[in-house]
Amino acid sequence: MEYQVKGAEGKLGILIPGLGAVATTLIAGVEAVKKGFSQPVGSLTQMGRIRLGKRTEGRFPLIKEFVPLAGLEDIVFGGWDVYADNVFEAAAHAKVLEPMLLHSLKPELEAIKPMKAVFDQSFARNLEGTHVKEGANKMALAEQLMDDIREFRETHGCARLVMVWCGSTEIYIEEGAVHQTLAAFEKGLLNNDPQIAPSMVYAYAALRSGVPFANGAPNLTVDIPALVELAHEQGVAISGKDFKTGQTLMKTILAPGLHARALGVKGWFSSNILGNRDGYVLDAPENFKTKEVSKLSVLDEIFKPEANPELYGDMYHKVRINYYPPHGDNKESWDNIDIFGWLGYPMQIKINFLCRDSILAAPLALDLALFTDLAQRAGMSGIQEWLSFYYKSPQTAEGLPPEHDIFKQLMKLQNTLRHMMGEDLITHLGLDYYQDLVDTL
Amino acid sequence: MEYQVKGAEGKLGILIPGLGAVATTLIAGVEAVKKGFSQPVGSLTQMGRIRLGKRTEGRFPLIKEFVPLAGLEDIVFGGWDVYADNVFEAAAHAKVLEPMLLHSLKPELEAIKPMKAVFDQSFARNLEGTHVKEGANKMALAEQLMDDIREFRETHGCARLVMVWCGSTEIYIEEGAVHQTLAAFEKGLLNNDPQIAPSMVYAYAALRSGVPFANGAPNLTVDIPALVELAHEQGVAISGKDFKTGQTLMKTILAPGLHARALGVKGWFSSNILGNRDGYVLDAPENFKTKEVSKLSVLDEIFKPEANPELYGDMYHKVRINYYPPHGDNKESWDNIDIFGWLGYPMQIKINFLCRDSILAAPLALDLALFTDLAQRAGMSGIQEWLSFYYKSPQTAEGLPPEHDIFKQLMKLQNTLRHMMGEDLITHLGLDYYQDLVDTL
Amino acid sequence: MEYQVKGAEGKLGILIPGLGAVATTLIAGVEAVKKGFSQPVGSLTQMGRIRLGKRTEGRFPLIKEFVPLAGLEDIVFGGWDVYADNVFEAAAHAKVLEPMLLHSLKPELEAIKPMKAVFDQSFARNLEGTHVKEGANKMALAEQLMDDIREFRETHGCARLVMVWCGSTEIYIEEGAVHQTLAAFEKGLLNNDPQIAPSMVYAYAALRSGVPFANGAPNLTVDIPALVELAHEQGVAISGKDFKTGQTLMKTILAPGLHARALGVKGWFSSNILGNRDGYVLDAPENFKTKEVSKLSVLDEIFKPEANPELYGDMYHKVRINYYPPHGDNKESWDNIDIFGWLGYPMQIKINFLCRDSILAAPLALDLALFTDLAQRAGMSGIQEWLSFYYKSPQTAEGLPPEHDIFKQLMKLQNTLRHMMGEDLITHLGLDYYQDLVDTL
Amino acid sequence: MEYQVKGAEGKLGILIPGLGAVATTLIAGVEAVKKGFSQPVGSLTQMGRIRLGKRTEGRFPLIKEFVPLAGLEDIVFGGWDVYADNVFEAAAHAKVLEPMLLHSLKPELEAIKPMKAVFDQSFARNLEGTHVKEGANKMALAEQLMDDIREFRETHGCARLVMVWCGSTEIYIEEGAVHQTLAAFEKGLLNNDPQIAPSMVYAYAALRSGVPFANGAPNLTVDIPALVELAHEQGVAISGKDFKTGQTLMKTILAPGLHARALGVKGWFSSNILGNRDGYVLDAPENFKTKEVSKLSVLDEIFKPEANPELYGDMYHKVRINYYPPHGDNKESWDNIDIFGWLGYPMQIKINFLCRDSILAAPLALDLALFTDLAQRAGMSGIQEWLSFYYKSPQTAEGLPPEHDIFKQLMKLQNTLRHMMGEDLITHLGLDYYQDLVDTL
Ligand SMILES: NC(=O)c1ccc[n+]([C@@H]2O[C@H](COP(=O)([O-])OP(=O)(O)OC[C@H]3O[C@@H](n4cnc5c(N)ncnc54)[C@H](O)[C@@H]3O)[C@@H](O)[C@H]2O)c1
Ligand SMILES: NC(=O)c1ccc[n+]([C@@H]2O[C@H](COP(=O)([O-])OP(=O)(O)OC[C@H]3O[C@@H](n4cnc5c(N)ncnc54)[C@H](O)[C@@H]3O)[C@@H](O)[C@H]2O)c1
Ligand SMILES: NC(=O)c1ccc[n+]([C@@H]2O[C@H](COP(=O)([O-])OP(=O)(O)OC[C@H]3O[C@@H](n4cnc5c(N)ncnc54)[C@H](O)[C@@H]3O)[C@@H](O)[C@H]2O)c1
Ligand SMILES: NC(=O)c1ccc[n+]([C@@H]2O[C@H](COP(=O)([O-])OP(=O)(O)OC[C@H]3O[C@@H](n4cnc5c(N)ncnc54)[C@H](O)[C@@H]3O)[C@@H](O)[C@H]2O)c1
Ligand code: NA
Ligand code: NA
Repeated sequence: MEYQVKGAEGKLGILIPGLGAVATTLIAGVEAVKKGFSQPVGSLTQMGRIRLGKRTEGRFPLIKEFVPLAGLEDIVFGGWDVYADNVFEAAAHAKVLEPMLLHSLKPELEAIKPMKAVFDQSFARNLEGTHVKEGANKMALAEQLMDDIREFRETHGCARLVMVWCGSTEIYIEEGAVHQTLAAFEKGLLNNDPQIAPSMVYAYAALRSGVPFANGAPNLTVDIPALVELAHEQGVAISGKDFKTGQTLMKTILAPGLHARALGVKGWFSSNILGNRDGYVLDAPENFKTKEVSKLSVLDEIFKPEANPELYGDMYHKVRINYYPPHGDNKESWDNIDIFGWLGYPMQIKINFLCRDSILAAPLALDLALFTDLAQRAGMSGIQEWLSFYYKSPQTAEGLPPEHDIFKQLMKLQNTLRHMMGEDLITHLGLDYYQDLVDTL
Repeated sequence: MEYQVKGAEGKLGILIPGLGAVATTLIAGVEAVKKGFSQPVGSLTQMGRIRLGKRTEGRFPLIKEFVPLAGLEDIVFGGWDVYADNVFEAAAHAKVLEPMLLHSLKPELEAIKPMKAVFDQSFARNLEGTHVKEGANKMALAEQLMDDIREFRETHGCARLVMVWCGSTEIYIEEGAVHQTLAAFEKGLLNNDPQIAPSMVYAYAALRSGVPFANGAPNLTVDIPALVELAHEQGVAISGKDFKTGQTLMKTILAPGLHARALGVKGWFSSNILGNRDGYVLDAPENFKTKEVSKLSVLDEIFKPEANPELYGDMYHKVRINYYPPHGDNKESWDNIDIFGWLGYPMQIKINFLCRDSILAAPLALDLALFTDLAQRAGMSGIQEWLSFYYKSPQTAEGLPPEHDIFKQLMKLQNTLRHMMGEDLITHLGLDYYQDLVDTL
Repeated sequence: MEYQVKGAEGKLGILIPGLGAVATTLIAGVEAVKKGFSQPVGSLTQMGRIRLGKRTEGRFPLIKEFVPLAGLEDIVFGGWDVYADNVFEAAAHAKVLEPMLLHSLKPELEAIKPMKAVFDQSFARNLEGTHVKEGANKMALAEQLMDDIREFRETHGCARLVMVWCGSTEIYIEEGAVHQTLAAFEKGLLNNDPQIAPSMVYAYAALRSGVPFANGAPNLTVDIPALVELAHEQGVAISGKDFKTGQTLMKTILAPGLHARALGVKGWFSSNILGNRDGYVLDAPENFKTKEVSKLSVLDEIFKPEANPELYGDMYHKVRINYYPPHGDNKESWDNIDIFGWLGYPMQIKINFLCRDSILAAPLALDLALFTDLAQRAGMSGIQEWLSFYYKSPQTAEGLPPEHDIFKQLMKLQNTLRHMMGEDLITHLGLDYYQDLVDTL
Repeated sequence: MEYQVKGAEGKLGILIPGLGAVATTLIAGVEAVKKGFSQPVGSLTQMGRIRLGKRTEGRFPLIKEFVPLAGLEDIVFGGWDVYADNVFEAAAHAKVLEPMLLHSLKPELEAIKPMKAVFDQSFARNLEGTHVKEGANKMALAEQLMDDIREFRETHGCARLVMVWCGSTEIYIEEGAVHQTLAAFEKGLLNNDPQIAPSMVYAYAALRSGVPFANGAPNLTVDIPALVELAHEQGVAISGKDFKTGQTLMKTILAPGLHARALGVKGWFSSNILGNRDGYVLDAPENFKTKEVSKLSVLDEIFKPEANPELYGDMYHKVRINYYPPHGDNKESWDNIDIFGWLGYPMQIKINFLCRDSILAAPLALDLALFTDLAQRAGMSGIQEWLSFYYKSPQTAEGLPPEHDIFKQLMKLQNTLRHMMGEDLITHLGLDYYQDLVDTL
């Protein structure tokens, strides 16, 4: 297949439900980069390179020079929140970026004011938002969001839009009847079905408006058959769930390494301490449950205990998140991994990651927005599994197990880009360097 | 190209210069596995699986059932050491395995007695070996080794042999004139050239005897043009250098992960404490130098500072090994990694690995022996870059930079096996799951 | 005051409710020491020394040679448990000591069989004990215990007895009316008052039998006015609560050091992972509550936030215990301490303690038994605050805040011993070394 | 003995050889505190309290309200350095304090310009200072320093002076003949004896001028018989050596705790990474040697291996300092401690201290200046062992082993203050709370 990737002309609007720590760090960061104050470190679209052809060809362009991406100067931000603070105020409250930097961007940040949110406190007990829409039912609220989207597109003269959920983690719910078909879902919107989360209302509004959607939180949102159906119907790209940062990022780096070496794992204990608003929301057990399910899933898929029972059959995996105000956004994780090697002898690995939550997440939100827009222009609609690289719980086609190994995810992402642009895929066979064979099949 | 891989019939002799901690842990372990006492954890050839075909095919055989490898029951061990202890005594002295286990294997281990070594104390100041060969010059010593090899093959009725260097790390030397051509090297052997290390004498003897050679230590040994020339001439497989275990293993797992995410690195400080004989040899600065060079090389190749100066241009990398007797073979590493993300904000990762040195190395020695024998039967002679997966400083063709990213190394190893057996290579593109495309090119 | 300390002639019976990990490690250890297999490391009474007089006098005897303590050869062990396993079986199940060691002590350990317990599952949901006494009411059960005690004393010909609670942690209860007076308490025993915990029944039976009592768990037990009253009436020594081991031990070592230097503390996060039966009992929130209260109390008393509001007024202290089976008895703690220094600049201390729970607790149980017996012979009845050194929540006189600083506790313990034996107390003034003054007041 | 402590009227001049990281952090900090910007955290004289009388009396005043200390507003700073940078420039270069804070103190800091140093590069190879005095011999240089002192006293109208060495660590030298008597020393000054270090020239000049001297570095300096003799002759107070901060501080906190519990120690491995100028000087092996000797000494005295051979007889202690530029002044230490408990079972403690070197040292320099001035006013001349609390290698009377246990040091310091002011010493016996005895002897 040959892709015909459309160019990235015109403005790209990035619409964000949830103008909290991650979103404001993203927005302020893009402004800082545009002014030349800082570098967009951690963003593959901005700083990453891709190898093309054989090792000896030395072709190693920046990704943004290889595929046609929207430039930072063409981005316009907008969003919704349950608090009325503008982005300057919200960023100051989040305490991620230094006051000096925020002040140097004050006019740009103050100008971005959240639209009123679709919200329901039963989905996030620890939030007391007041800046919320009212409506007869969830369908009416969805329509108000569609109006917001239309108005934003016109006001800012956007050629294209993408939506990235950066709102709080909602309580845990499982897929039910109302999520199975588009028809059932739309009836549920009219009936105010309690199983329809606010985030789903946003996703519905986006897809109906032809706007692709990416989900940075672990809540189901767009990962239900009804909305997959709508995405296909509308020809828009979707992906999720849950930005892969911090401890889980480390896990999907390290676990493939242990697996590669056929080292056994008896236990993996993961603890986190964090003190930001996200941590406060997750202090409610029903919200933590959503995150826990997302965090726990990654190891099994990588280790495949059913295929390797002697190595991973007894693995005990536990994840804890502890709200600890002194740390603010400086999330710290601590992992103890009980492994065993030759003849079953035990060893331990301990990892202490002093990270910054939103600093790690912001560039992922940017990349997802830009790559989602690229996919849309390449005519790739529905679930974008090649974006698994960015997610803790990648959304996949029904029945297809997600891939969690970050290196396979990266390979998939890179080979997708190569494929889009008609370049050879890379297999790392490389026998030809030694024996005059062709590198790829 | 189609490989015609010969079968693995008959006995395989594994000849080991250096019957110390690693070698005795390997030998005792193979005996324990043969008796059903323990599992060969950490060995890809024994416990690893390989995916074949598409994800949905569910083909995931054990590697040893996919490619024809020598079985453990067909292995015979032999070796040389500067101390006369038999393998039971040497294993007891190394204090890696529990006394109970060693006692249950006593007869088998006692039966293996080291042949006299080719040794020169100027290459390992901290060793006082007495069980050494005497000879007019290094060529004469090589010939004695060739006699040993011939005799071993006959006594044990081996169909094939491989040699794996598990001797102490020799002092640091750089490639000189005597290493450039086979002719110069053979003259050097006759002249007793001081630039020819004992390990090179073993390698020469092996290659001359048609025995492939793998090098578990960081000394040059077979990684010199003269011996590459001989390997080609003789049609034997060679590879090296330095088993990739412990801290460096972790490094080549973690660094690709940071690089994948375009996270910057400002500094990487690595400290080790260990108290075994290897640690004692490395306590001599000239021997540590050899190890240090090997350990320092890995990061640059993975991060490519010249291609990514903003992310890795200022990286400060330091490695320390501290001899600390209380730990014995239980090497412990501690890494502090100073990284930076979005807008340059700093973060830190700390890794504390409580490992067991020889427990990690023994299965690598086994895999190298078995895969080297496989390569030989597949007609692959000269440098085996696909075995990079096992080495800290992979030996590559002249001018070709080594690949250190363990995941690319694994991909290369697996695709080489697939290629040998005529299976499709894997690219992880997988668009067909979504859009009815072919998986691979 | 002059003490007349009676000698330690005759046998000392140590009676233990709860023959679990700690108790069996204690009993097996004493046997191993008696046989000369091992050393009683961690026990002040067995291996500790005490300085007497001035630094220059060089008087530094073993504590057991300074004060008259029962010798290990004069100790007889007995106990109760809700499971019928003898001490050999229970020790094997606890997996603290190596099988080889246990087997070498098998006859001695098998001979000790638990008496039937006084138990009530509502106090430890996760225990399913069957080896329990039946009786009309709690007073009847107490009388059965008194019979057990009498019989044990006679059978073994004990000159003296002490009881040390090593049973599971009971659920959290607060002092109520039934605990206020001996009269109310005895009425409660007859009425089966649900506020009377099984451990209190043991304590009552001990005190009534003239047997001093020490409490190794955090439950109230003997720390209620009713039983203090009884202790005074009977002239017996009592002390508690909760052996100070592992993380809390480290805390009461480190916190005094930070306080000594006037360093501020913003937060202290403590996490634990353990997988033994104790951990399983504590996995029930009501039982964890008892432990948590005990663990949280220590910092405030040491830092005195009300006296030092600028340094400790905002300290956030959180303690977590996570049940993690792969670790068994090898409890591991991890602490993150956020401190600040000169001008408020922040720093962090991280402590990772790979400990062994019962190995740390067993010698404390021994010391408490021996020192309690000593106190009894010295005529010191009621609360023994000088044993605070051993406890997480030291029992003190009504209204007197406990001392948690382990160095003040040690000073108190040592000066009490010096005082008992008529030696000068030590103040560390020592000006006389320089200016011919008297060392002590 | 009754002390007659003179009041602290008039200005106190603090003279500092070495206006580097510690000194400028001290000076800027005192200015910041005077302006009310920050708190002098970490300083016992400014923020510490002392308990007086019995626990129940509730007397717990600030130390500075209990003993008569110079107030911060009465302090004047001066100093010498081999670089001509004023204190603002030097502080900016040291990168300890935030630029914003330094700028708010610019006028005060700029006003303090170093006097020319007495320096000799053979004592600190990595320094290339140019701002140095010239003189016929070391006696002539000492006289120039005495002139500096006299002039400073007059210019600033100081009632009293103290000198605190904050210069770089000099190379390792051992006590020789020239250090034995004042006469030999003065002859050496005239002869330019190479065994007389620059720091000794400062100390000599101070003592000759009647100025007490405290030594924050590990070099011998004032810890030689010749200068002790001079101190006695002149009636001035002296103390040293080496500010106790960071890792050694932690060690002398933790080791007494392990010893208190009779836990054995098999090994203690200490590593440090730091990247400031101090670290750069210590990167020269001869200078590191001085620091190493100072750092290694502490454990032996606390554990007393000769008195406790079963617990500490085999202890292996190793200390490493690694120059690691990415960390700057943010020194990080990592300790692994191999301990053993009951029956010899091994456990491990790992401590990772993310500290700030100069933030920890600055308040010690302040306390030493103020307490030394207090001692001087109390008529205490010669070695001030009660200030051991502040030092890694406390200077003591000939033949008296130093006390390293920080809690005994604190006790000594506090009881000295109580003694000075005629208060009862504290022994922590406290039996009277229970039995109507007197608290103290
Ligand atoms: N490293 C990371 O930071 C990271 C990683 C993975 C996932 N996430 C997820 O990203 C999301 C954002 O994280 P954050 O740190 O910015 O959290 P945050 O609490 O700072 O911001 C979330 C914002 O969403 C708003 N919000 C909640 N419900 C809303 C609704 N229905 N409509 C509009 N706004 C709503 C909240 O008021 C808040 O301002 C969370 O779900 C978090 O779990 C973050
Ligand atoms: N994890 C690991 O254990 C690991 C990892 C990478 C590399 N290595 C390397 O593997 C080698 C073996 O490690 P080890 O732990 O077994 O060390 P070891 O010291 O226990 O064993 C080495 C043995 O080699 C012998 N020897 C030295 N020179 C010899 C010679 N010229 N001929 C014959 N014998 C000789 C020594 O006497 C010794 O018995 C070392 O070079 C080591 O650096 C080990
Ligand atoms: N480091 C330590 O091990 C440590 C430290 C502080 C406190 N403690 C406390 O010491 C106690 C013992 O710890 P452990 O590790 O031995 O636990 P464990 O679970 O191994 O042993 C406790 C035993 O008590 C028995 N038991 C429970 N209720 C009883 C009753 N009413 N009568 C008689 N037996 C009863 C249980 O059956 C069990 O065998 C626990 O309360 C624990 O919290 C232990
Ligand atoms: N935590 C700590 O910072 C700490 C702890 C213990 C001891 N110390 C010691 O304190 C001293 C100061 O530490 P720092 O971090 O400020 O170091 P620094 O290198 O920043 O400052 C030392 C200064 O002394 C100057 N100097 C060197 N020789 C001199 C001389 N002969 N006369 C005058 N000036 C001279 C140098 O030029 C430099 O400016 C060092 O010896 C260090 O080892 C520091
Ligand atoms: Na936790
Ligand atoms: Na080190």
